[in-house]
Amino acid sequence: MELVTISDIEAAAKRVQGVAVRTPLLLQTWDPRKTLWLKPENLQPVGAFKVRGAFTAISALDDAVRARGVIAFSSGNHAQAVAYAAQRYGVPAVIVVPDVAPRIKVAATRSYGAEVIEVPISELEAKTHELAIERGLTLVPPFDDAAIIAGQGTVGLEIAEDLPNVEVVLVPVSGGGLASGVGTAIKARCPQARVIGVEPALAADTTEGLRLGHRVDWPVADRARTIADGLRAQPSDLTFAHLRKVVDDMVTVTEDEIRDAVRTLARQARLVAEPSGAVTTAAYLSHAGELPAGRTVAIVSGGNADPAMFAEILA
Amino acid sequence: MELVTISDIEAAAKRVQGVAVRTPLLLQTWDPRKTLWLKPENLQPVGAFKVRGAFTAISALDDAVRARGVIAFSSGNHAQAVAYAAQRYGVPAVIVVPDVAPRIKVAATRSYGAEVIEVPISELEAKTHELAIERGLTLVPPFDDAAIIAGQGTVGLEIAEDLPNVEVVLVPVSGGGLASGVGTAIKARCPQARVIGVEPALAADTTEGLRLGHRVDWPVADRARTIADGLRAQPSDLTFAHLRKVVDDMVTVTEDEIRDAVRTLARQARLVAEPSGAVTTAAYLSHAGELPAGRTVAIVSGGNADPAMFAEILA
Repeated sequence: MELVTISDIEAAAKRVQGVAVRTPLLLQTWDPRKTLWLKPENLQPVGAFKVRGAFTAISALDDAVRARGVIAFSSGNHAQAVAYAAQRYGVPAVIVVPDVAPRIKVAATRSYGAEVIEVPISELEAKTHELAIERGLTLVPPFDDAAIIAGQGTVGLEIAEDLPNVEVVLVPVSGGGLASGVGTAIKARCPQARVIGVEPALAADTTEGLRLGHRVDWPVADRARTIADGLRAQPSDLTFAHLRKVVDDMVTVTEDEIRDAVRTLARQARLVAEPSGAVTTAAYLSHAGELPAGRTVAIVSGGNADPAMFAEILA
Repeated sequence: MELVTISDIEAAAKRVQGVAVRTPLLLQTWDPRKTLWLKPENLQPVGAFKVRGAFTAISALDDAVRARGVIAFSSGNHAQAVAYAAQRYGVPAVIVVPDVAPRIKVAATRSYGAEVIEVPISELEAKTHELAIERGLTLVPPFDDAAIIAGQGTVGLEIAEDLPNVEVVLVPVSGGGLASGVGTAIKARCPQARVIGVEPALAADTTEGLRLGHRVDWPVADRARTIADGLRAQPSDLTFAHLRKVVDDMVTVTEDEIRDAVRTLARQARLVAEPSGAVTTAAYLSHAGELPAGRTVAIVSGGNADPAMFAEILA
């Protein structure tokens, strides 16, 4: 299986330039150990790192193919990222969402000019493939794709540029696109650094899989228990192969630790993080003993917190 | 009266490099007009633009003078900024705070290694000057100082670098240090741009003063009514002279508009802003008719929102 290389990620960095925000590293002065920097990907357009991959994938298409339009299925940040990237390119986007998706997310996706089609959740993938063929649209997958992995890897490239002597990089793991790309960039540029994946304990399939040396399948209903709704997916063969190569260790965090981290990020770092975006901070705050010491970067991957849940966590 | 120049601000930019965060401009994709960028100064160390001025002022001192230490009086962001900058330089800092200051702010100031001295609010300035003489400390004023104005002006320099064709810059006005510096930088680098100062209607002394052509004095009790507790100060002769020259117009916002802007910044921009930091967004959202059209930057000046108030606004 061919893995994404640092050259792929460097090429992706050119594609996302001027579109993705060049997020700064934020040194956290409230931490007396003074070794924590946050990489605030919640500040990206659409509120998540996902724009990097979506832009890279859509930008890499042949002009004629891209002009016919793109399609994605998701109710989360990937949907909005594909809609936003397509809008910036002026090409049609169709987003297939489960009919149970929150109204607020559907509205946000529509606000980027995408055609949103709601279907029963069991028909999501089938309907997407059917529409892609019918209308000649190109599918932009959420993580199982070399261009997507390369795009997400630009987060790691920027960390390496801004803090070349970084010692620990904490990255959330779900489908594994972000961790695959970031890990590849960090191992190439900062070989001394350790890449630590973080999962909610309630959706820790990758932690188990990497220990066993093969992918494992957790029931959807189990993974759905975590409030970190962006971390309920599982790696593909492609991303799992990357993770085996570039992730040094995994840490799992509890639901309470995630909530505490959301609160700390708001109060101390002035960032609105969604639970999925707060797991790396949770690992830093609550699992210091399991982490290597040294200059640490925690990737805050997204900020699309449900307003009511966010207010309740802060209260 | 000698005013701060663009050269002073360029020199300050070198002093704050690597200490202040080079904050990106964040294009707001939720706005269909697509002309709003935020400058998130709430992401600075200590949560406000104030580190820029404090660093510039302390960095500009002679080594021997600086080594004796610095002193400031404030219960707000300036106190923490001076404490933080002094800590980074390894020199003593004394912060004189009113004995009614919130415990959480006193603790934050102490956490940067400063000696905090609490006095009755009526004795604040006298006690500070007394201590400065007794201990040979240099006073770092919050705004009435050329180095402070130059340091805050680096915000404007960065806006001009990142968006050279900016048309409107919205900046909060209190003591006027930020608006003086930002206005000076913008007028030098982007002469086509209009600089609009924003005040709470409940503390609109500068709006009135600029209309009349001279400083006016509002009773402290009147200015204390606004929840924007960082905007209760008034310009000095020095800052007022800058504001007359570089501010094109003023807009005032209501308390409800400020609260709405805090909510919008959290939900749409994933930023925790304090009320004072949200007034420019409030002007953009609620006073479009009073503003020039075009590419607009709103400076989000700080993020030290009281946790209970912030949660209440979001709920």
